[in-house]
Amino acid sequence: MSTHAYGAHAADKPIEAIAIERRAPGPQDVQIDIAYCGICHSDLHTVRAEWQGTRYPCVPGHEIVGHVSAIGSDVGTFKVGDTVGVGCLVGSCQHCAACDEGLEQFCANGFVGTYNSPSADAPGHTLGGYSQQIVVDEKFVLKITHPEDQLAAVAPLLCAGITTYSPLRHWKTGPGKKVGVVGIGGLGHMGIKLAHAMGAHTVAFTTSESKRQAAHSLGADEVVISTDAAQMKQHAGTFDFILNTVAASHNLDVFTTLLKRDGTLCLVGVPASPHPSPSIYQLIFGRKAIAGSFIGGIAETQEMLDFCAEHGIVSDIEMVSAQQIDEAYERMLKSDVKYRFVIDNATMSA
Amino acid sequence: MSTHAYGAHAADKPIEAIAIERRAPGPQDVQIDIAYCGICHSDLHTVRAEWQGTRYPCVPGHEIVGHVSAIGSDVGTFKVGDTVGVGCLVGSCQHCAACDEGLEQFCANGFVGTYNSPSADAPGHTLGGYSQQIVVDEKFVLKITHPEDQLAAVAPLLCAGITTYSPLRHWKTGPGKKVGVVGIGGLGHMGIKLAHAMGAHTVAFTTSESKRQAAHSLGADEVVISTDAAQMKQHAGTFDFILNTVAASHNLDVFTTLLKRDGTLCLVGVPASPHPSPSIYQLIFGRKAIAGSFIGGIAETQEMLDFCAEHGIVSDIEMVSAQQIDEAYERMLKSDVKYRFVIDNATMSA
Repeated sequence: MSTHAYGAHAADKPIEAIAIERRAPGPQDVQIDIAYCGICHSDLHTVRAEWQGTRYPCVPGHEIVGHVSAIGSDVGTFKVGDTVGVGCLVGSCQHCAACDEGLEQFCANGFVGTYNSPSADAPGHTLGGYSQQIVVDEKFVLKITHPEDQLAAVAPLLCAGITTYSPLRHWKTGPGKKVGVVGIGGLGHMGIKLAHAMGAHTVAFTTSESKRQAAHSLGADEVVISTDAAQMKQHAGTFDFILNTVAASHNLDVFTTLLKRDGTLCLVGVPASPHPSPSIYQLIFGRKAIAGSFIGGIAETQEMLDFCAEHGIVSDIEMVSAQQIDEAYERMLKSDVKYRFVIDNATMSA
Repeated sequence: MSTHAYGAHAADKPIEAIAIERRAPGPQDVQIDIAYCGICHSDLHTVRAEWQGTRYPCVPGHEIVGHVSAIGSDVGTFKVGDTVGVGCLVGSCQHCAACDEGLEQFCANGFVGTYNSPSADAPGHTLGGYSQQIVVDEKFVLKITHPEDQLAAVAPLLCAGITTYSPLRHWKTGPGKKVGVVGIGGLGHMGIKLAHAMGAHTVAFTTSESKRQAAHSLGADEVVISTDAAQMKQHAGTFDFILNTVAASHNLDVFTTLLKRDGTLCLVGVPASPHPSPSIYQLIFGRKAIAGSFIGGIAETQEMLDFCAEHGIVSDIEMVSAQQIDEAYERMLKSDVKYRFVIDNATMSA
C-alpha cells in the first residue's frame, strides 16, 4: 500500500516528497489516515543525523493524529472512523518488567520508535508521521476525545504533552505544590499548562522578559527571569519540583538552589555539550535530586490525553504545509515558533 | 569549668593541648565526661581551614561518646552515669518545618554544629569532642545501649554511621533491594555493614583488588572493582540504590549506568573540585536520579544507634592518643586506616 510521505534521503538532503509502503493491517493492526503531525526537535536531530544511527530514507514524525481507516480482524478497541493518535512508540517486547508496568518507554528489550527503529516492514526501519497513512499495533494507538476542530493542536500532546505530563505526575505535583517550568518552548509551554491544570502553583522561568505576558497567558502564576539574580534569590529554597525543558548546556545550580529540601530538578532534554558540572553541595545540604524523565508509557499517554480533553488543553500551534518543513526546522532552531509547528498532512498529496 | 582539650590556634599550627571552658549545665543541659571521640575527615578540613570560616582556637570532634557526669534541673531523659553520645549537631531553632519533622540537620535557621558554630559560650563558637567534657542540650544527646566494652567503636556511628544510615533508610533499602556502596573507608565500611544488616543485597565497589576480602568481611555480598569495565558491565541496570561515599572528583556515569529504572545514586561527600559533568542521557533514559544526603536528625540518629546495638554493629577502629592526632590526619589523607581513628580522650590529661 503506497502512501505519500515527506522525508530525506540523506543527512544533507532536503525534506521532500517520497512514496513509501505501509503494510496491510494484520489482525491486531489499526490503519490510520493521518490528518496532522507535529514537528518535534527530535525529528530534526534524526533527519540531519545529529544523533547516531539515522537510517535513510528517513521519514520523521511522532506526534500523529488522524482517523482509523481500517482495522485488523482481532482489533477490539477501535473502529473505522475513530479519532486516534500515535506518539513516540509503536512497539515493545510486552513481556519485560517495564512493559508489565505499562512503562513501554523503558522496555528492557528496546521499544520500537515510531520512526528510525528496525522493522520487518519495508524499508527495514519504521517510518513516521510525515506521511498520509500509518499502520500500528492497536496497543500503541491512543483514543482522542477532544473536539474535532482541535485535532491539529492535539498532535503535539503525543510527545511534548506526555514528556511534560509524566514527570509532573511521577513527582506528584498538584495543589499545595510549587512547581517551576524552565524554558517556554514546545515542551515548556505544555509543562506550564499541565502544571497549572494539575493545581500546582506554577512558576515559569525564562531568560526573556518579552515572554512574561505569554507565560502568564499559558497559565503561569508567576514568571521569573532566570538571569536576574535578585528575582531568583527571592525564590531560593521554595520549590517542590522544577521541570527543566532546556536541552542547551546551562548552569543547573541556579535551579537546584531554588528547590526545597527533598525537591527534584527534572531534566527532559539531553544537552549536545554537557551542562557545567552541578553543585553537589546543593544536593547534599537539602537532600535534593537531579533526575531525568523520558516521554511516558501508553497507559499514561492515554491518561494525559483524557486529562487534556477534560481540561480543554491543547498545544499552541502554527500550521505548516509539508512543503514548508525545512523552513519550519530553520525557524525552530531560532525558537521562532509559538510553540509547535504542526504539518497539515493533506498537503502531502499536493 | 576548665577542661582539657586538643585543638589548633591557626590553620598552619599543629593540634596541641588547649585548656577550654565549658558552661555550667543549665536546666536542660547534660554534662558529659567524654571517653572517646572519632576523627572525621571534616575535622581535618575545618582545623586546616580547607573550608571557609574556621574560627580559632578550633577544637574539632563530632563523634563523641562518654558518660553523663551532671544534669540540669529540668533534664528528664538522662541521669548521671548514663552512657551517651553527641554527633554533629548540638542545637537548632526547634520551630521551623525541618525541626518539626525531626530533621534538625536541615534547620531553616541553621543548625548549631558541635564545633565551629557561633555560640554564646566562650570563646564565641562551639568546641567539639577533642576534649574531656562537653555540655549539651539534652535534646541533642543520644542514648547508647551497646555493651560498654564497645564504646570506643560506637563513636564513629555518630557521624559516619548516621551519614550512611539515613540515606539507606530514606531510599528504602532492605530485603529484595540491590544496593551498592562506593568506597570502603570510614563512611563506606559503615555503609556496607548497615546495608547488609538492613537485608539488602550489598555490593561494595572499590578501585583496589586488595580490599576484596575486607569488603566481604564487612558484609558485602559481592565486591566489584569499579575500574574493571567488564565487571561493571555485568551489573548494568541492576541497582536500586548506590551510596557513593567518595568525595574525590570522579566519573559518576559508571555508577548511574548500573542503576535500574528509577534508581538513585546518592552522594554524601562534596568534592573539592567538581566531578566530571554527569551524563544526563543516563538519567533520562531510566528516570534515574543523582541525589545528596546529609547526616541525619536526632530521632533518626537514635534509631540508628538502637539498630546498631540490636545488630551488634560498631565501627572498625584504630585507637590513638590525643598526642597522635596530627599523625592520624596524615595517615587518613593516605587512606591508611581501617577504618576510623578514635581518640582515647583519657590521654588528654597526660
